[in-house]
Amino acid sequence: MAIPVILDCDPGHDDAFNILLAAAHPTIDLLAITTVAGNQTLEKTTLNARRVCTVAGIEGVPIAAGRDRPLHGPVRVAASIHGESGLDGPGFKDPTVPLDRRDALTLIRDTLLAHPRPVTLVPTGPLTNIAAFLLAYPQLTDRIERIVLMGGSTDRGNTTPAAEFNIHCDPEAADIVLTSGLPVTMLGLNASHQVLATEDVIARFTALGTPLADICTEMLGFFAGRYREVFGLPGAPLHDPLTVAHLVDPDLVTFVRANVAVELTGTHTRGATVVDLHGVTGRAPNADVATVVDAGRFWDLIVGAVWALGAHQA
Amino acid sequence: MAIPVILDCDPGHDDAFNILLAAAHPTIDLLAITTVAGNQTLEKTTLNARRVCTVAGIEGVPIAAGRDRPLHGPVRVAASIHGESGLDGPGFKDPTVPLDRRDALTLIRDTLLAHPRPVTLVPTGPLTNIAAFLLAYPQLTDRIERIVLMGGSTDRGNTTPAAEFNIHCDPEAADIVLTSGLPVTMLGLNASHQVLATEDVIARFTALGTPLADICTEMLGFFAGRYREVFGLPGAPLHDPLTVAHLVDPDLVTFVRANVAVELTGTHTRGATVVDLHGVTGRAPNADVATVVDAGRFWDLIVGAVWALGAHQA
Amino acid sequence: MAIPVILDCDPGHDDAFNILLAAAHPTIDLLAITTVAGNQTLEKTTLNARRVCTVAGIEGVPIAAGRDRPLHGPVRVAASIHGESGLDGPGFKDPTVPLDRRDALTLIRDTLLAHPRPVTLVPTGPLTNIAAFLLAYPQLTDRIERIVLMGGSTDRGNTTPAAEFNIHCDPEAADIVLTSGLPVTMLGLNASHQVLATEDVIARFTALGTPLADICTEMLGFFAGRYREVFGLPGAPLHDPLTVAHLVDPDLVTFVRANVAVELTGTHTRGATVVDLHGVTGRAPNADVATVVDAGRFWDLIVGAVWALGAHQA
Amino acid sequence: MAIPVILDCDPGHDDAFNILLAAAHPTIDLLAITTVAGNQTLEKTTLNARRVCTVAGIEGVPIAAGRDRPLHGPVRVAASIHGESGLDGPGFKDPTVPLDRRDALTLIRDTLLAHPRPVTLVPTGPLTNIAAFLLAYPQLTDRIERIVLMGGSTDRGNTTPAAEFNIHCDPEAADIVLTSGLPVTMLGLNASHQVLATEDVIARFTALGTPLADICTEMLGFFAGRYREVFGLPGAPLHDPLTVAHLVDPDLVTFVRANVAVELTGTHTRGATVVDLHGVTGRAPNADVATVVDAGRFWDLIVGAVWALGAHQA
Repeated sequence: MAIPVILDCDPGHDDAFNILLAAAHPTIDLLAITTVAGNQTLEKTTLNARRVCTVAGIEGVPIAAGRDRPLHGPVRVAASIHGESGLDGPGFKDPTVPLDRRDALTLIRDTLLAHPRPVTLVPTGPLTNIAAFLLAYPQLTDRIERIVLMGGSTDRGNTTPAAEFNIHCDPEAADIVLTSGLPVTMLGLNASHQVLATEDVIARFTALGTPLADICTEMLGFFAGRYREVFGLPGAPLHDPLTVAHLVDPDLVTFVRANVAVELTGTHTRGATVVDLHGVTGRAPNADVATVVDAGRFWDLIVGAVWALGAHQA
Repeated sequence: MAIPVILDCDPGHDDAFNILLAAAHPTIDLLAITTVAGNQTLEKTTLNARRVCTVAGIEGVPIAAGRDRPLHGPVRVAASIHGESGLDGPGFKDPTVPLDRRDALTLIRDTLLAHPRPVTLVPTGPLTNIAAFLLAYPQLTDRIERIVLMGGSTDRGNTTPAAEFNIHCDPEAADIVLTSGLPVTMLGLNASHQVLATEDVIARFTALGTPLADICTEMLGFFAGRYREVFGLPGAPLHDPLTVAHLVDPDLVTFVRANVAVELTGTHTRGATVVDLHGVTGRAPNADVATVVDAGRFWDLIVGAVWALGAHQA
Repeated sequence: MAIPVILDCDPGHDDAFNILLAAAHPTIDLLAITTVAGNQTLEKTTLNARRVCTVAGIEGVPIAAGRDRPLHGPVRVAASIHGESGLDGPGFKDPTVPLDRRDALTLIRDTLLAHPRPVTLVPTGPLTNIAAFLLAYPQLTDRIERIVLMGGSTDRGNTTPAAEFNIHCDPEAADIVLTSGLPVTMLGLNASHQVLATEDVIARFTALGTPLADICTEMLGFFAGRYREVFGLPGAPLHDPLTVAHLVDPDLVTFVRANVAVELTGTHTRGATVVDLHGVTGRAPNADVATVVDAGRFWDLIVGAVWALGAHQA
Repeated sequence: MAIPVILDCDPGHDDAFNILLAAAHPTIDLLAITTVAGNQTLEKTTLNARRVCTVAGIEGVPIAAGRDRPLHGPVRVAASIHGESGLDGPGFKDPTVPLDRRDALTLIRDTLLAHPRPVTLVPTGPLTNIAAFLLAYPQLTDRIERIVLMGGSTDRGNTTPAAEFNIHCDPEAADIVLTSGLPVTMLGLNASHQVLATEDVIARFTALGTPLADICTEMLGFFAGRYREVFGLPGAPLHDPLTVAHLVDPDLVTFVRANVAVELTGTHTRGATVVDLHGVTGRAPNADVATVVDAGRFWDLIVGAVWALGAHQA
């Protein structure tokens, strides 16, 4: 029986591949997509979600826009990594996939209430929508199976030396999610830096030869170029698809159970995820934290998804 | 035309008098009462709201329970001021006024949608419900006329030397409300310490001679005793009714327009309201902040409300 | 027997009057003056100390310069209150009183070692020199009788809504002093705002008719003008001389014993002194905190000092 | 010409080896040893410095005790790593090497003033003494060649998930050192975890067969046991001797120049060193930060020092 999933995302190059994987893989029943401000403004990430679904032929999955700024403070975007559009690289036509008129929280509520089984939430952007949902509908938490998120790190960050982008964008939202008592699985930078889209990897997409694969090649080319320039990396970490890849193949990623605290007050460390790997803080574990990733199997999944969707289209 | 109002409260002795004033005064159209954890646990404050309505004969106003803890961290109550029940002093019979089965946020939403005009929110407890509502339903902010809250201070606090109780309980919620862009009126400790329920004041209630007045006398007696013991004050500040009193009689309280920032990160000052009375911070004003209260007119309003409700009952 | 005193100051208009009072009054044995960056840069406050001693004929008191910036972060001055020179208003000739070649900490050390009795330290600027001294010479703390400082507040600040200037300039230094275990007396804004140099007060100096009194009139005129403009006050609070006035006349100021914590980490409250007047924090008292000042007796002391020094000169 | 060095330390197993290396190697002119509270109380770390010098026959190097607690807050020790004595493992006889009667800061001052060339400070404990010295004697900074410290990390900590022990003990002291403008070289956990005293390494000491080597074997055996139990490591990181090893063999360690900020205000990250390896913060570099260590050459140096000192004794 497929796993019912709601993707909450801010596409974003790596979010795009997570949508493709979730839509393509038979293990996943993609019920809805909600968007949030993050890699770019809400307007742009919402447009990008519709663009990705349009080019991949993903139909019938409702897409609704959520929060346009974090719980506290101003919105910040990652234009230096994802470009002005949030999905720079390929040219996209106007999307044909429509926008659901409901607010993201209403779509999540309706989806949870309509599904016979608890649903897995998969946030791959700032956790604003998810935190707002938990505050808005505490009576519906038993409709949530678990939360599998991309964010944070067991060691260094990327937006600041201490903080990863998604958590740094909305630390209070992350704190609300991590202290909610719901089962949380965290896949952070320490894991995603094991899955770099290098030249070799990109060549696998190019070799597929479909229009969708060409768009993927262009997305990864832009994305890898940015990481090369900003961080000197030989490829772009494909952060977000670790989440759905973990759902599809539970042995792909190794985890440790640990306490994760979000730093809310630090001058230089706000938004850091403080992961107590050695149990020195005395705080009870509240998350399964990714440590080791099987990169080969990961890329097989992503390449396979792009192939499947492209073949279906052709 | 009466002002449509939703009271969001945590009764609490002073909240109780605010309910009485809102129900009694013809200037106010009391649409709903929602409760929040604060002076006591949510269970107790909700019971107390029903008790107060029952003894005062307030019927037809829906009462719904909201959040049982702040956005972040554990719930804290003020048992040293309000007692174990949250409304110690009088004996109360089991309330006959029912509890609305909706969640507080749903009741607020339904009330806003049902009323032809924008509604004034009057929070007199921690701002958890209001912040959660703003996060849950940003599309409904144009249904809110303004927010008139009791909380904070222009100088010292009471729960800590720096922070007032309502804001200290949930500083992040207060920050969300104060930075929401909605019109906010803040009546804080610096104002409420001008309306002390001293022996002379209490005697005015006793003199009314109605059963409701007797209960008010007992509530004020307990409340004044606590403030005498903990703070050495000659009477209890009747904080919360300043809000509805201001709505009923706009000239009762003098205000200055100023920036109010909530301290979220201080070691000794978390929850302090930093009010920029002299414009030294460069931050734009975001609230009307109470400074001077006409105590005589205030007590006339409160005594009048208790008299009116009691006479109606008899 | 006169009280042996070291003044540590950042003149500054109100510091100037404190030097005059300490030099003029027979109860005080002024052993040394040390300067610190604060109201203006170290260079300017040091020059001003020499100017004040020169115009008042104070000779034989060594003056040494101390720290030019706080323990952490950049130096900040109060040019909007004290002007570009730090002592705007009167014209000053080049000072004839020399600068001691020793570092301020060395002068304090030598003075403490040379005096047969423990010495009272009277800081009226940022506490940088004093904190640095305590860190440099812990073995000499028994040579310190007590610390009588101007700084902080029991309620609002002046540099920010929450923080008073001297403490805000160097919160870590203040924390070191207040947690040193030495007897600390704190005279803050809540006390100094009771001694405003209004027109009536200034007229008393003018009436003295001496050259020194004329300079005092000009200093107070400038100072009062700044407070009128920035804070809308009817006169300038003569903060610093409360310290020596208290030494001279112990009944002039009323105190409460309380815990004073310095906020080091607040976003909006850094440098606030959190004074636990009602014992709600559970922290042990560490200071005597000024509450009520007899303003009449205070001004008599200040006017008397100016008169005495001026008469001596003529 | 040998490098003139003052060691400021809190022995401590790894500090002990740093003393041995500094005393044994002809490249180093060990002028003085000062002690600080850290791995254990000041009394114990001072005794341990004398013990180490006594067993190794290090004579003529003055040893003076410094600060017994950090600039702010209470002292914390690392008994779980270094044992109750701070140097558990071997039995030590009463030391014959005397304690200098001067305060550590006075000894540093006298040493700097007496030496014809600027001196390198090598702190391997909390930076309390060094920060206090910089505050006490700013006029002597040109007598300091550079500061080569063990502390911090480019990624995770050990005392907390975010903070390394030496910096966590006294974050404000670390901030003062790192923002002093002096040349600072930082060797942190990310470097020292490359030099683990595993069984193979310990066997090299045992094989030397001298009494000093036996003591070293016992020290390393205890130390490795603690790291195995607390952190699951296959050996003990010999943190502190990286400092002198770097002085002796400048190519042993690779560095990057970067900004290092000390987190002073974080709830979960206080004492973290935030190292801006990718220049994302816009802050100017203020330290050379160790990245890669040649472990083989490192152990050759340490084993060689123990051999040389032991041979000299026999």
